[in-house]
Amino acid sequence: MTVPSSPLVTDLYQLTMIQGYWLAGIHRREACFDYFFRHQPFGSGYTVFAGLEDTLRFLEGLRFAGPELDYLRSLDLFRPELIEHLRALRFTGQVHAVPEGSLIFPIEPVLRVQGPLEECQLVESALLNTLNFQSLIATKAARVCQEAGGDNVMEFGLRRAQGVDGALSAARAAYIGGCAATSNVQAGQTYGIPVSGTHAHSWVLAFPSELEAFRQFARAYPTKCILLVDTYDTLRSGVPNAIRVGLEMKARGERLAGIRLDSGDLAYLSAEARRMLDEAGLTDTLICCSSDLDEFIIRDLNAQGARIDLYGVGTNLVTARGEPALPGVYKIAALRGEGDEWQMKLKWSEGLKKSTLPGIKQVWRLRGPEGSMLADWIEMDGITPDVEQGLWGFHPSDDHAKTLYAGIDRAEPLLVPVLRDGTVCADLPPLGRIRDRVRGELEGLHPTMRRLLNPHVYKVSLGPELKAITTRMLDQTGR
Amino acid sequence: MTVPSSPLVTDLYQLTMIQGYWLAGIHRREACFDYFFRHQPFGSGYTVFAGLEDTLRFLEGLRFAGPELDYLRSLDLFRPELIEHLRALRFTGQVHAVPEGSLIFPIEPVLRVQGPLEECQLVESALLNTLNFQSLIATKAARVCQEAGGDNVMEFGLRRAQGVDGALSAARAAYIGGCAATSNVQAGQTYGIPVSGTHAHSWVLAFPSELEAFRQFARAYPTKCILLVDTYDTLRSGVPNAIRVGLEMKARGERLAGIRLDSGDLAYLSAEARRMLDEAGLTDTLICCSSDLDEFIIRDLNAQGARIDLYGVGTNLVTARGEPALPGVYKIAALRGEGDEWQMKLKWSEGLKKSTLPGIKQVWRLRGPEGSMLADWIEMDGITPDVEQGLWGFHPSDDHAKTLYAGIDRAEPLLVPVLRDGTVCADLPPLGRIRDRVRGELEGLHPTMRRLLNPHVYKVSLGPELKAITTRMLDQTGR
Repeated sequence: MTVPSSPLVTDLYQLTMIQGYWLAGIHRREACFDYFFRHQPFGSGYTVFAGLEDTLRFLEGLRFAGPELDYLRSLDLFRPELIEHLRALRFTGQVHAVPEGSLIFPIEPVLRVQGPLEECQLVESALLNTLNFQSLIATKAARVCQEAGGDNVMEFGLRRAQGVDGALSAARAAYIGGCAATSNVQAGQTYGIPVSGTHAHSWVLAFPSELEAFRQFARAYPTKCILLVDTYDTLRSGVPNAIRVGLEMKARGERLAGIRLDSGDLAYLSAEARRMLDEAGLTDTLICCSSDLDEFIIRDLNAQGARIDLYGVGTNLVTARGEPALPGVYKIAALRGEGDEWQMKLKWSEGLKKSTLPGIKQVWRLRGPEGSMLADWIEMDGITPDVEQGLWGFHPSDDHAKTLYAGIDRAEPLLVPVLRDGTVCADLPPLGRIRDRVRGELEGLHPTMRRLLNPHVYKVSLGPELKAITTRMLDQTGR
Repeated sequence: MTVPSSPLVTDLYQLTMIQGYWLAGIHRREACFDYFFRHQPFGSGYTVFAGLEDTLRFLEGLRFAGPELDYLRSLDLFRPELIEHLRALRFTGQVHAVPEGSLIFPIEPVLRVQGPLEECQLVESALLNTLNFQSLIATKAARVCQEAGGDNVMEFGLRRAQGVDGALSAARAAYIGGCAATSNVQAGQTYGIPVSGTHAHSWVLAFPSELEAFRQFARAYPTKCILLVDTYDTLRSGVPNAIRVGLEMKARGERLAGIRLDSGDLAYLSAEARRMLDEAGLTDTLICCSSDLDEFIIRDLNAQGARIDLYGVGTNLVTARGEPALPGVYKIAALRGEGDEWQMKLKWSEGLKKSTLPGIKQVWRLRGPEGSMLADWIEMDGITPDVEQGLWGFHPSDDHAKTLYAGIDRAEPLLVPVLRDGTVCADLPPLGRIRDRVRGELEGLHPTMRRLLNPHVYKVSLGPELKAITTRMLDQTGR
């Protein structure tokens, strides 16, 4: 559902470049492009990789149909032969990627596309759109869930999300990141994510009184009744009326499942509401809170002793307020030359910190005891790390910093084949397993690296061969 | 294309409420809901209303098909009779709205939905998603275009947008707000928006040298050649190579259309590049800049004397960084009672500033000489303002503030019928006319109200009858 449905989900310049490559006769040369990002969003210590399945489905299904070609023809920019050429174009290349739900870190290629230059170029925009957004939201969700604890977060963002599939793919990513449910029914249908939701203020206003509205809702949903208590006055009207209905339910052998606070000072109101519910004997009625929550507010609420059992998180989660885009990029790393030999490519532009890593690479995750994550190590593809000897890792942008990694239990190659000759060749796990992977990986990350603010930095190093090649190429192109 | 395609583009609680209304026997009572927002995004002096056509198409096409009903059945939450009831459900109501492209202001209802309670409730989430996001981006675009001047802004945001239709609807809204073109080819095809774009760094890296890459591009696009000059070193390599190719083009009777700067200090680099181009005689080669631009950065660049002709604006525009969601809401304002009489509804919760305006209302735009905008005046529907007498306007949240509006040329009712009995009944203008409306309205707004920061506040007042009703109801429900 959130798979880009048209090859025109692309920036025009991909198509003008394709025509240019074709005119220059280099459009079928094999290229290698890397997807990576340069800094963590939200100052996070990690990013959760998401959006892979949608990306692969897009690549697999890519083709130009009549209306799309007609539109391109109408632009008066493309030659008729090129239009015919596009008609036959498919994505026939190879994709390696880290598994969806992996933790990923700056500068490491986490998805690698190899194939004819024109095909690699065409898919850039849709690939970036999908991976950037879903990884961003999965990361935000993981941070929110980390503070809210376990399975207590529901994603409520549809009404403020950026477009309908902004909402849908956010719901997918939020679930991957750890949310327990979504309010978005389409996301439930499309992805099998649990859906949740009870009633709005309009329900309360549709009846002659709040009490009557609560009674009607309890009658309609005797086993799933959560009452919204802030339509008039939370502590003087909403909670007392909810308690009255809760006691009526109790007398009928039912249970008031919860109340929901949606405005005001949640720390104060939740504690007061808890006290009132407990005093009335409704100790098993949960308190659900919503109202512009994010990971920092939830942490503060906890620190203040708020009595909140469930969190509804909307806008700040699905739009990633504060940092609404992951600046992931997709850069050419190698291209075969006239003699079919691989030529490595490096963009310099603004110095070492923004240069790219040349060549076809592999990323190795160095693990210590019990699967703990020690560091990631990027090296030219084909070089297998000798973990028993220890591994030298070079800092990607500080020429004076290097580390000898020792005590490595094993080194795991992160980039695995996921698309072969244009067809998905990996087992694409169901969403629940992707979600489990996130949880497992987070457990393997040192707690100081999961800190919300100023986390301890997880090391990503270059192997000796990659470092040497990069240095040589920088010396040739740098100022 | 950006029309929500399923009735399941909704929050679950809309459906649980619908079942509850149905069980309580009030689901077919006529209701009136208002769409409005409480504060301007970005501290702007105005918001541009966008997303209306997509919203109306959604309402017109709303129906539950088999797979959607099967999914709802699978949730074990809805009774079989309710599922059958949903199968026959259509949106049969009335919608009044301000024309798309109008400037809108806090607390005024800009879209009013009347119809059976269950229908009004069902559509809330999709309506909010569409109107909130498109209005947000149209507003951001208007601000960016105001600083960049006229037709100089291209929207480049696809790769960082929040989902594929986040990008597509952002492209639509950005064009409405004043952008001249988009890089998003699907937006071009779907909406007829002009598309633009030339080449990326990968083009330069695909050839043996920057000079060779530029020559090849000029050969492919002799009339539309814009060269990206920051792959290696902007002033020492990129611009000199572009000039060399520009002079070769000139010698062939062609023209180098432009160069593009995508990194570094744009104020410095653009001025230097301009000087170098001019000294080489390439005075008609334009300078295009991109790189995390927004309205404030563009204003600063202008203030520093940057020599920029065209702006490519991406992430900050399409995600509205800083304020990625317009917090528009949709609140019940009236509901017919048992005796079919209208009952007005008001939500209080957190005091006057967050209370809603009860009843079925009209918004009047008071205009002075030459169409200038004096103020907006909200009054109960059916009351026609007597502009010759002058109009008393009451502050919506300060009981001590009122204004006598005099010198009114005319009062325009903003809410006009757009959907009648579920069918679009208004002429829905093409995108270009919506864009023209924005431009015209902005010209009618006092310049101090268009200021980026701390704009002079455009007044929105309540008419005497609405003020009296609101006060009476607040007295009854307030603490």
